[in-house]
Amino acid sequence: MKKNSLLTQAPSVLNIGIDGFNDSVTANGGTLASIQWQPPGNAAPDLAWQLAQLTGDERIEAANAEACQRIINARPMWEDMALRADGVMPELKGTRLLLHAGPPVGWRDMCGPMHGAMVGAVLYEGWAKDEAEATQMLKSGQIDFAQCHDFNSVGPMTGIISASMPLIQVRNTSYGNVAYCTLNEGIGKCMRFGANGPEVIARLKWFESVLAPVLKTAVRHNFDKTGGIDLKAIQSQALLMGDEVHSRNAASTALFFMAVTTNLAAQWNSTTHLNADHVHQTLDFIAKNSQFFLNYSMASCKAIMDAAHGIPFSTVVTATARNGTETGLRVSGMGREWFTAKSDLPQGLFFPGFKQADACPDIGDSAITETAGFGGCSFAASPALTLLAGGTVDDAVRYSREMYEITVTKNPALSLPALDFAGAPCGIDVRKVVDTGIRPIVTTGIAHKDAGVGQIGAGIVRVPMEAYSKALVAIATKFN
Amino acid sequence: MKKNSLLTQAPSVLNIGIDGFNDSVTANGGTLASIQWQPPGNAAPDLAWQLAQLTGDERIEAANAEACQRIINARPMWEDMALRADGVMPELKGTRLLLHAGPPVGWRDMCGPMHGAMVGAVLYEGWAKDEAEATQMLKSGQIDFAQCHDFNSVGPMTGIISASMPLIQVRNTSYGNVAYCTLNEGIGKCMRFGANGPEVIARLKWFESVLAPVLKTAVRHNFDKTGGIDLKAIQSQALLMGDEVHSRNAASTALFFMAVTTNLAAQWNSTTHLNADHVHQTLDFIAKNSQFFLNYSMASCKAIMDAAHGIPFSTVVTATARNGTETGLRVSGMGREWFTAKSDLPQGLFFPGFKQADACPDIGDSAITETAGFGGCSFAASPALTLLAGGTVDDAVRYSREMYEITVTKNPALSLPALDFAGAPCGIDVRKVVDTGIRPIVTTGIAHKDAGVGQIGAGIVRVPMEAYSKALVAIATKFN
Repeated sequence: MKKNSLLTQAPSVLNIGIDGFNDSVTANGGTLASIQWQPPGNAAPDLAWQLAQLTGDERIEAANAEACQRIINARPMWEDMALRADGVMPELKGTRLLLHAGPPVGWRDMCGPMHGAMVGAVLYEGWAKDEAEATQMLKSGQIDFAQCHDFNSVGPMTGIISASMPLIQVRNTSYGNVAYCTLNEGIGKCMRFGANGPEVIARLKWFESVLAPVLKTAVRHNFDKTGGIDLKAIQSQALLMGDEVHSRNAASTALFFMAVTTNLAAQWNSTTHLNADHVHQTLDFIAKNSQFFLNYSMASCKAIMDAAHGIPFSTVVTATARNGTETGLRVSGMGREWFTAKSDLPQGLFFPGFKQADACPDIGDSAITETAGFGGCSFAASPALTLLAGGTVDDAVRYSREMYEITVTKNPALSLPALDFAGAPCGIDVRKVVDTGIRPIVTTGIAHKDAGVGQIGAGIVRVPMEAYSKALVAIATKFN
Repeated sequence: MKKNSLLTQAPSVLNIGIDGFNDSVTANGGTLASIQWQPPGNAAPDLAWQLAQLTGDERIEAANAEACQRIINARPMWEDMALRADGVMPELKGTRLLLHAGPPVGWRDMCGPMHGAMVGAVLYEGWAKDEAEATQMLKSGQIDFAQCHDFNSVGPMTGIISASMPLIQVRNTSYGNVAYCTLNEGIGKCMRFGANGPEVIARLKWFESVLAPVLKTAVRHNFDKTGGIDLKAIQSQALLMGDEVHSRNAASTALFFMAVTTNLAAQWNSTTHLNADHVHQTLDFIAKNSQFFLNYSMASCKAIMDAAHGIPFSTVVTATARNGTETGLRVSGMGREWFTAKSDLPQGLFFPGFKQADACPDIGDSAITETAGFGGCSFAASPALTLLAGGTVDDAVRYSREMYEITVTKNPALSLPALDFAGAPCGIDVRKVVDTGIRPIVTTGIAHKDAGVGQIGAGIVRVPMEAYSKALVAIATKFN
């Protein structure tokens, strides 16, 4: 570009916001300092107006501080494996009801894996004799659906919970509330990825007859003395050991394995009812599945976040959940309402033979871990996850730094080594997400978009901004 | 300082080496670029001469490449627990011989913990009825001493190996050589820190009767099929999980625990000879001792480094070992000769009630881990170690970067996440240490200088330069 002859002297400019101005200054030989800035409300004027009304509201600041204090004070203890006979979730036992991940979604709008998993669950429960009959029942409204989150529970990926499935039972002993999650099936063909073949059903039956009873024996050992197994202790240690306890659980699974095994070893003599072969099968299954702890991490986080829910005026997100079609948020001060938007596609690395076009939109309740400060919020703790999910170690650190911009405080109970042991980001504030335009990062497995294929990769995804914008408008309407 | 009036124009200077010149330039308004440089040989003229003779010697370059290839190719497999009845190290069985850590040292020159441990070993073997008699026997030459390293073995801290102690047996299946180490005693009062009371002796007896037999059952399970337990696989995974497998072994111990337990679980039914209570005691002991894997890491590294020893013209260090008085090096091309210097005092964090003045000089064979590329070389992998040993996360990363300056290559089998998964520093080259003046960093436990007190802290220590200088002179003399 030719130098502008009207300028007798090179300009010296401070530019705020729009980068486009910079070129014209430098092209004319000027010097320039550029400040990154955008209008509040992610540049949408009505959101900016709502934000202005909610900024500096002392009722909100106090409520968010209280929500974060509850997150920090939480003590999620694995206290039991709930078997069918234990009668938890009685609503599921008498009726044909399936729980699924994420906000509500009807049969027609469900993604492929959700369809596949639903069919699998109907077969697993013995409500239909084959896939065709199961599909017909589901289509015709003979099966009811509800959300895991409405039953104090969470489920990974499709997140199906049906009446017979054994459930991890976690009590937040600081506040008394209880949360549930199913057991992790391993990788490959699993119901959580929409697979529903005989081997998937057989594995779930084995959970009922072998895995869950052995785990129950482990967790109930000396329960009066121990109060169970401290999941937050495992999660916080694992952050020092390369896990973010969402997409990487290698250390947490090993620590969990040690806790379970020493409890079992204390009992495996001839006077107990422990079946040696069952113990062997159980330990072998856990040792070969480095994501086994994920479902414990999720139940722990659900127990943590439910105690921070229901605080009037709090704008802290207490649930982030995806059904494979939409992503939904719940907000502490906004009751049971879901704020939803279309799910994005996860980006990452794909297993050989698969590609981005095969990916199902973001799915699963596992983003409860981010909501509690793990996963994407704690990505800096897990450089090794980049080997699986893509990106560089610098990216991992940068993601955690970004998350500080949209959270209320730092959690002193959870240290991120790569950030000089700073506390993990704590309490995603709807206002800050809208204000900064920074969307929370979720580390996630990637499911094939078709039912029954299974996991095809791992990566990251951002939660859609529209869900926060909707929440902000609803908050402003309710609180003002 | 007043501006020098003789200068009509501000000087523009490039300064190489000595920082002192910089002030006079800047004080006179000059601009300055300063290059860090020091003469080769760490500024000692005769060493510089020796170095010059050894620089670019193709025989040395080829030999060092071969040594590093052997380090990289090593496959250390835990193949057995050698019990007394197995008859390994027959030299120890018929005579009153004790092996100790580090280079040779006489009774008079031994540090407090070494004295304490020697007395303890005599009592443990039943050669004396009490401490006084044991001390008299040791003083009067009725007990022979030798170095662990001369028996294909290594020992942590005082490193005592006596006839009855069960030994971890590791085979480097790539080269066929075998290495040994004792089992880890835990923290607190331990023989490796010079403690020798009844509880110390009782624990070692329990190793013989319970711990070692159970571990032998574990490692020998399906041995024909498995070839044992792959220690380098555990070490390399642990580098992704916050361990440097010298002073921090939380992840490696958990991974080891999983491997041992699944092998045991496969056997604990009524038809085997496994004692359920012994299994419980064993697993409990390991689960409560996050440094249990250290001794396995040491045996693994000894098996790795022995295969890289004995290559003519190689200047790669194959052993770094401390007896609490002196630190000694062995060099691949220099046979069994030790190059020694007075040990430095470790610096770090002390347990409550202890201080720097209580510290024993650097002690133990565990620096074999640094020699193989772990520990201080891989400090970047273990930010969490700074919580125990002091320093910052930046320090940890910087230490690993420094170690690249004095090593031959990078080990592609060992990745350091914080350095974007760069291979760990591989093959400490005597020439490079002398040339750069950078002394290898060792991560280490700190023993009390008096016998019987035990561990009082953890930190880091640098290997004394004099040992490398001596080695360099000997190398130059031999090779030229």
